[in-house]
Amino acid sequence: MTMLTELSSPTRAAASGLADRYAAVRHATEALCVGLAPEDTVVQSMPDVSPTKWHLAHTSWFFETFVLQSFKADYRPFHEGYAFLFNSYYVHAGERHCRAQRGYISRPTLAEVYAYRAHVDEAMLDLLARGPDQDAASFESVVRLGLNHEQQHQELIVTDIKHVFSVNPLRPALRPGADAGQQRRSASELAWVTFDERIDWIGWDGAGFAYDNEGPRHQQVIQSFRLGSRLVTNGEYRAFMADGGYERPGLWLSDGWIAVQTNHWQEPFYWERRDGEWWSYTLAGMRPIADAEPVCHLNYFEADAFARWAGARLPTEAEWEIAARTVPLQGNFVESGRLHPVAAETGAPLAQLFGDVWEWTRSQYSPYPGYAPAAGALGEYNGKFMCNQFVLRGGSCATPASHMRPTYRNFFPPEASWQFSGLRLARDV
Amino acid sequence: MTMLTELSSPTRAAASGLADRYAAVRHATEALCVGLAPEDTVVQSMPDVSPTKWHLAHTSWFFETFVLQSFKADYRPFHEGYAFLFNSYYVHAGERHCRAQRGYISRPTLAEVYAYRAHVDEAMLDLLARGPDQDAASFESVVRLGLNHEQQHQELIVTDIKHVFSVNPLRPALRPGADAGQQRRSASELAWVTFDERIDWIGWDGAGFAYDNEGPRHQQVIQSFRLGSRLVTNGEYRAFMADGGYERPGLWLSDGWIAVQTNHWQEPFYWERRDGEWWSYTLAGMRPIADAEPVCHLNYFEADAFARWAGARLPTEAEWEIAARTVPLQGNFVESGRLHPVAAETGAPLAQLFGDVWEWTRSQYSPYPGYAPAAGALGEYNGKFMCNQFVLRGGSCATPASHMRPTYRNFFPPEASWQFSGLRLARDV
Amino acid sequence: MTMLTELSSPTRAAASGLADRYAAVRHATEALCVGLAPEDTVVQSMPDVSPTKWHLAHTSWFFETFVLQSFKADYRPFHEGYAFLFNSYYVHAGERHCRAQRGYISRPTLAEVYAYRAHVDEAMLDLLARGPDQDAASFESVVRLGLNHEQQHQELIVTDIKHVFSVNPLRPALRPGADAGQQRRSASELAWVTFDERIDWIGWDGAGFAYDNEGPRHQQVIQSFRLGSRLVTNGEYRAFMADGGYERPGLWLSDGWIAVQTNHWQEPFYWERRDGEWWSYTLAGMRPIADAEPVCHLNYFEADAFARWAGARLPTEAEWEIAARTVPLQGNFVESGRLHPVAAETGAPLAQLFGDVWEWTRSQYSPYPGYAPAAGALGEYNGKFMCNQFVLRGGSCATPASHMRPTYRNFFPPEASWQFSGLRLARDV
Amino acid sequence: MTMLTELSSPTRAAASGLADRYAAVRHATEALCVGLAPEDTVVQSMPDVSPTKWHLAHTSWFFETFVLQSFKADYRPFHEGYAFLFNSYYVHAGERHCRAQRGYISRPTLAEVYAYRAHVDEAMLDLLARGPDQDAASFESVVRLGLNHEQQHQELIVTDIKHVFSVNPLRPALRPGADAGQQRRSASELAWVTFDERIDWIGWDGAGFAYDNEGPRHQQVIQSFRLGSRLVTNGEYRAFMADGGYERPGLWLSDGWIAVQTNHWQEPFYWERRDGEWWSYTLAGMRPIADAEPVCHLNYFEADAFARWAGARLPTEAEWEIAARTVPLQGNFVESGRLHPVAAETGAPLAQLFGDVWEWTRSQYSPYPGYAPAAGALGEYNGKFMCNQFVLRGGSCATPASHMRPTYRNFFPPEASWQFSGLRLARDV
Repeated sequence: MTMLTELSSPTRAAASGLADRYAAVRHATEALCVGLAPEDTVVQSMPDVSPTKWHLAHTSWFFETFVLQSFKADYRPFHEGYAFLFNSYYVHAGERHCRAQRGYISRPTLAEVYAYRAHVDEAMLDLLARGPDQDAASFESVVRLGLNHEQQHQELIVTDIKHVFSVNPLRPALRPGADAGQQRRSASELAWVTFDERIDWIGWDGAGFAYDNEGPRHQQVIQSFRLGSRLVTNGEYRAFMADGGYERPGLWLSDGWIAVQTNHWQEPFYWERRDGEWWSYTLAGMRPIADAEPVCHLNYFEADAFARWAGARLPTEAEWEIAARTVPLQGNFVESGRLHPVAAETGAPLAQLFGDVWEWTRSQYSPYPGYAPAAGALGEYNGKFMCNQFVLRGGSCATPASHMRPTYRNFFPPEASWQFSGLRLARDV
Repeated sequence: MTMLTELSSPTRAAASGLADRYAAVRHATEALCVGLAPEDTVVQSMPDVSPTKWHLAHTSWFFETFVLQSFKADYRPFHEGYAFLFNSYYVHAGERHCRAQRGYISRPTLAEVYAYRAHVDEAMLDLLARGPDQDAASFESVVRLGLNHEQQHQELIVTDIKHVFSVNPLRPALRPGADAGQQRRSASELAWVTFDERIDWIGWDGAGFAYDNEGPRHQQVIQSFRLGSRLVTNGEYRAFMADGGYERPGLWLSDGWIAVQTNHWQEPFYWERRDGEWWSYTLAGMRPIADAEPVCHLNYFEADAFARWAGARLPTEAEWEIAARTVPLQGNFVESGRLHPVAAETGAPLAQLFGDVWEWTRSQYSPYPGYAPAAGALGEYNGKFMCNQFVLRGGSCATPASHMRPTYRNFFPPEASWQFSGLRLARDV
Repeated sequence: MTMLTELSSPTRAAASGLADRYAAVRHATEALCVGLAPEDTVVQSMPDVSPTKWHLAHTSWFFETFVLQSFKADYRPFHEGYAFLFNSYYVHAGERHCRAQRGYISRPTLAEVYAYRAHVDEAMLDLLARGPDQDAASFESVVRLGLNHEQQHQELIVTDIKHVFSVNPLRPALRPGADAGQQRRSASELAWVTFDERIDWIGWDGAGFAYDNEGPRHQQVIQSFRLGSRLVTNGEYRAFMADGGYERPGLWLSDGWIAVQTNHWQEPFYWERRDGEWWSYTLAGMRPIADAEPVCHLNYFEADAFARWAGARLPTEAEWEIAARTVPLQGNFVESGRLHPVAAETGAPLAQLFGDVWEWTRSQYSPYPGYAPAAGALGEYNGKFMCNQFVLRGGSCATPASHMRPTYRNFFPPEASWQFSGLRLARDV
Repeated sequence: MTMLTELSSPTRAAASGLADRYAAVRHATEALCVGLAPEDTVVQSMPDVSPTKWHLAHTSWFFETFVLQSFKADYRPFHEGYAFLFNSYYVHAGERHCRAQRGYISRPTLAEVYAYRAHVDEAMLDLLARGPDQDAASFESVVRLGLNHEQQHQELIVTDIKHVFSVNPLRPALRPGADAGQQRRSASELAWVTFDERIDWIGWDGAGFAYDNEGPRHQQVIQSFRLGSRLVTNGEYRAFMADGGYERPGLWLSDGWIAVQTNHWQEPFYWERRDGEWWSYTLAGMRPIADAEPVCHLNYFEADAFARWAGARLPTEAEWEIAARTVPLQGNFVESGRLHPVAAETGAPLAQLFGDVWEWTRSQYSPYPGYAPAAGALGEYNGKFMCNQFVLRGGSCATPASHMRPTYRNFFPPEASWQFSGLRLARDV
C-alpha cells in the first residue's frame, strides 16, 4: 500500500463533500460484515490473513493516529492499549503487536470494536464539520488517504474471510445466493489486440487521488505487443492441467517449481476434487468449476507457467496501463455483490481489464525513476515493500469501484494466491 | 488420559444417581464458562491449547459417540460434520480435524455448540432414565468414563483460557475478584517426613472409578525416603533464580539446558518483570508474586533443576502415592473458585498433597506390570501416550475435587508448563 | 554414557597391564579406520553422526583433558584450539563447538589428527610407565574410564561411517567381503523361556569396571515373565510389514504414529526396494534381506509396534538383566569383523543376548534408587541424559566384546535407528 | 547464469585457438585449488556453498554431457553414477542429487575426481583436434559456453572455500601472504560523475560471447543521473554502523528489517569484534578492517539501507552499464592473486567499475524485452531464475578478467552475502 500524493487544487472538495464521502466509506466497511457472527471475526487462518475484527479496528486506528491526533487538539484516544494492538506495520508510529498473532486476541470483542469505530466516527465528523485545528494544508490529503486505506481493507475483509471460511471443514457460505443467475455458458473467443511501439508516459498524471508509488510520471520505450482480449478462463486452465502443467518443470520458474514440489500444488487454490469433478470454495459456498469464468486465485508462478505453456507471456505493467487507458473504468467490482469473477461478455474488443480478478504482470515491484517516499510514518505505506513482489493491475470483484484507476499498482509476493488474482496473456509482435 | 476399568459390583449406583451425576457434571462445565464472550471461546493460542468452544463440543461428541451411538438404537447425530471436527485423537473413531487448527474454526458458533450440548443432554437423560437398548453390562462404565473425561476437560477449559487471555497484551481477567482475601503472608516452615523402606502395593485397589493406567495393582520395593512437608514456594524459587538457577548448566538435564537456551527461559511461565518487580498473570489479572504461595507453571526441567539446586530430588510416583494415602483427600480444588494456588497452612505435618498444583514426579510415564489397554477406541485413552512424558500427581486448583484420588496418574511432556504444575522435594535417607 | 564407579581393590592391575591395555584399545580404534580415505573422515551426514576424524580426535582430547592435564604436571596440550573443537558435551570442561557443525571442519586434517593421537599416546605411555604426579588414588579409575569411553567411540565410528556411506548414491562398501560365508539359511525356531516371579538384585555388583548408571545395586519385585529364545528376524518383521504394520495406528504409540506419518516410514532404516525385492545397505555393500538374520536398525517405535502386533511386548531392562546372567558373555561382537548381525544358531535355549543387535527394552532411562552422579565434568557422563530415552541392552556387532556386561545400560531416544538395534519379545505369564 | 547466444561468424576462431583456450581455462581451475587438502574439498558449510570437489566434477560433467555426448559419437561416460551426482539444476538433463546434501559425499575422492577431469580433458582435446562428429554449427558455441561456465565456477570455488574456512574456529588461511603490500592508507575522495538524460541502447551488441540474458539489445529512456566515482569504503560503512544503521528500521526495506531482526545482523558478513576492534576473515587469514578498502560481503538489504542513509540510492543496471562503457575493462580480478578488494587509486574520475566487488543495482532481475531462452537443458541456464533476485554488475576480485564485460548480468537473492559484493552510490539530478 502507499502514501497519498498531493492533490491538485481544482479537485479540492468542499468540506461537506468530504464528510459525506467519509460516512459512505465507513458505512460500506460495516455493510460488508453483515452476516458475520462474533466468532467469525476473531480467526486468523494463516499469517497473511487478519481477523475481520482487526480490520475494523485498524482502519479506525489509522484515522485516530494520523488524523485525529494530528489535527484535533483535544482528541483523547479511545483506549490506551489499542495503538499497540491495531498498528499494522508503521514503525514510526510505535511498537505493535506481532502480525502472526492477531488471531489470539479475543478482547476487545466485536461489540467493543464497533464502539471504538463509533467513537472515532463521531470525532471525525465533528472535525470534518469544523475543520482542523492545525496544518490545514495537509488535512484533506490525509483524510483521503485514510479513506483509500479503508477501501483497501474492505477488499481484505472479503479475501480474508473467504480464507477463514474455506479452512473450516463445514465450508460455510457468507453470501449463500450471491451467484444466483450470473452463470454464463461460454466466454467470448480469445482475440489479440495489437499495440504499436512507442515512447509513452507511464504513471499518475496528477488528477484526483493516487498513491505515491504511481508516480513520478515518466517516459518509457514500449515495443509493439499484443494483448489477449479477455482474462484466461477456468476451461483454458484445465487444459493446462490436463496437459501436465503441474508436472513439467520446464514450464516453471526455478522458485516456482520448488514451491510446486514443496507444497504439492496440483490445482489452483480453493479447488477441490469431489467425486471426480473439480469444485471450488466461493463465498456463496462450494460450487462446480465453470469453464467460462476467469481462472482465479492463481499465484504468480502459476500465472507465469500457464502463459509459458500457452506460448505467450504475462504483460508488463506498462503494457497493461497503456491498454487500460483505452477502455472505460467499469467492471465486476465489489458493489455487484457477487464476490466472484464472471465470464467475459462477448463483443468487447478488450474486456475485463477492470474488476473480476487482479491481473499478474511480469513486472517486479520497483520504484519509478525519481520516486521518493514521504517522510514519517506515512512514508512507510508503499516504498518499503519494493522487493520480491510482483505488480498486479486492474482490481477484482472484491475491490470498490471508486478505488480503481489505470495507474493503480497492487503488489504481492509471487506465492500469494488468496487474493482474487488471475491473468491475461500478452505476446511480442 | 485413560480408559475406564471395570466397576466392582457393590458400587453400581442406581440409575437415578447416575442421571443426577450426569446433570451435575455437565452443568459444572457450563458454569466455568460464565463470563466468556463468544470471541473468547474461539481462540487457540498455541497448539496445546484448545478453544473453549471445542472443549464444550468435544465432550458432547464423546457421549454421542461412545454412549448414544452404542446404546441408543434410534439415536441420530446432531450434525454429520461434527464427528470430524470434534474427535480429538481417537483413531478408531474415524478421521479427525488437525489439532493445531482448532482455532481456525468459527462455525459452529458458541450458541450452536450449546444447542448441540442440549441435544446430547436430552438424549442422555432420556437414555439414563429408561436404560440402554443393548450391552447393559458396560453401559454404566462408559457413562462414568464420559463424566470423568468431561471433568478432565473442565480443568483444560481453565488452563487453556488462562493461556488465551495471557497472550493478549491487554491481559484481561476472567475472574477479577477471585483471589480476594486469599493471601497468606507466610508459608509453613519446610519440614521433612520420613517413610521407612518397605515392599508395598501400588495402584488402584478396585474401589470406585479409576482409569486403566492406575492398574494393575502390584508390589514394589521402596527404599526409605523423606518428603517435604509442603510444596516449594515462590520465595524459594526466587532464591534459585537469584543464585543463577537459569545460568548454570550443571543443574539441568541435557535436554532441559538446550531448552533453556533455545527458549530463553529465565523465569517461570506467566511471570513478567514490571518496573523491577516480578508479576504473574492469573485468572484474576496481573498481580505481584507472593512469596508464600506455591510456585506454579513450572515444567519438568525447572522442577528437576530446582530440586538439584536444593540438594534434593523429585519424588517417584510410588513414593508420592504412599504418602498420599496417609492424608485426607482435600485441598484447594476448582470448587474453591480461586483458580490459583494458596500458601500452605501451618500445622499440618504433610500439606498440599491434593489440589493447588500438580506435583511433578521423577517417574517417566510407563505401564504398570501386566498393563493392557482395552480393545477399540477407548483403549486409546491412556496407553498410547507412554513415551517421553513424566507423571504428575495430586491435582490442582483447576481440578474438580471428585475427580481426584491417590492413585491418579496425570502425565505431560517435560517441557509443558501451561498446567498448574509445581513440585514437592524428596530426599534419600 | 556414564562415569566410572570405584574399582574394588582386588582388581587393581599392575601398571604394566594398564599400559598394555591402553595400547591395545587405542590401536583397535585406528584399526577400524583402515580403508577410509581422508575425505571419508570429514563427513557428518546427520546431526547424530560425527565425522571419523572427530571421533579420533575427541577420544584423544578425553585423555588429554581428564588424565594428562590432571595427573601430569608438565603436560602441554598439543594445540590450544583443539579443546574447543573436540569437547563433546562436557560443559564443565569449557566452551565447545556446535555438535551439528562438526562436518564443516576440514582442518586439522586426518594426518594432523593422527599426529595429535601420537602426541597423546606418547605422553600417556610415559605417564603410565612412571605413574601420576598427583592424586594417584583416582588415576587408574580415570584411565579405565577413558578406555571404556574410547570403546564406545569405536562403536560409533562403525555406526556413523555406515550412515555416511549409506547416503552416498554410489553406496560404497567399507568392508566389501566382510559377510562372506556368514549366511545361515534359517534361524532357530522361536521358543519361550519362563522366569519365575521373585525379588531380585539389579545393577552392578562391584566387580570390575562399570559406569555409574549401572548402580546402585538394588532390589526389585519381578513378576514372572517369558522371554523369546532369540532375536526377532527379518522374516518375522516382513510378516509385520505385509500385515499392514506401518498402516495401522492401533499398533503404535501416539508419538510413534506421528513419526510414521511425518517421516513416511514404511520399512526399517537402510532398507531399499529394488526391482520388487528388499535390499539393505551394509558395510559390505548393498545386499538382499536375509530372512533368517535378526532385524536391525529398528527404532523404539518400530520395536514396540512389532511386539504389539506379535501379541507380546518388549522386556523391561530388569527382566533382560536377569536372563542375561544365565548365559555366557559371548556373541557376534566387533571382533568378528562381520559388522552385521547373523542368524541365531539352533540349539541354544536362550541365544543372542549379547552382540548382534542392541535390544530395545520398554524401560525409560531413569536413575536407579539412590543414584547420584559424580561431581565435576565426569559427572556429566550419564546422569544428565535421563529423560526421553529408552534403555537398550546387550551390545551389537559393532561393540567390542570386552566392553560388555549384563548390567550395561545403553540408551537412545525412541526415534533413533542408526545404531545396530533390534528386539527380543517378552510376555507376561 | 545463462545460455550462450550465437557467435557472429567473423569471430569464429581456429580450432587450435579453441583448444588452447580450453586447456588454459581448465588449468586455471586446478591452479586455484593448490594448497587445498583432500579434506577441504569435501565440506559444504551452508546450502549455497558447494564443495570444491563438487565444482571440479560438475564442470567436467558439463563438458561430458553437453559436448562429448552430443558431438563425439563413441564417447563413453567415465562413471555411470556421476551424472546423478554432478548435475546441478538441469532438469532436462535428468535426475540429480539434492543440492543441500553435497557435503555428505566423500566418494569419489579428490584423486578420483582429478582422474575424471583428466578423462574428460583427453576426450575434449581429441574432439577439438579432429572436430565434432555431428552438428558442427553449434559445436563451438557449446564449447565456449562450457568455458564460461567453468569460469563462473572458478569464482564460486573461491567464494565457497572462503566460507568453508571461515566457519572453522581455527580460521585457517588459504593464501597466507596474498595481501602483502597491497594496503593503501586512504581511498580517493568521493566525487560524483553526471550522465545526461538520453534514450540509449542497453544489452549485448553481438560481438564476442555473451549469455542469453544480456540480450536482446533494446532502447531505454534514461533520466539524468549521477554516479559515485568509486566504491563505498569500509570507513564509510563504519560511519553508517556508528550512526545506528542496524537499529533504524526507517533505513531498511520491510523484508530487510525482518531479516536484520531474525538474523541479528549487526555488521557485514565475515566481520568479527575482537578486543574492541573490527576484524574480518579473508583468504589471507583474519585481519583488521582497513577503512580505505571497499566494503565487501554486503547483502542487498545492507547496500540499499546504506545508500538510503547516505541520502543516495543504488544505480539501476542500465545506469551502471552506460557508465561502464566509458572506462577500460580492467581492475582487480582473480588473476591479481589478492582475492580481496583494494582501495581505489586516486586520480581516476570513475574507478573500480570492474573487479574488486560486484556492485548491487536496484534492478530486480527480469527479462529484457523480447527475451526467450533456448530450448532444452541449456535454456535453463538463466531464464528460470528471473524472480526474487537483484542484478549485480562488474565482477569481483574472484572473477577471471576474461569473463567480464559491460553487459554482464550477475544476480543473487537480496539476502546473499557470501559473494564479494559491495556498492556504488547513485543520485537523481
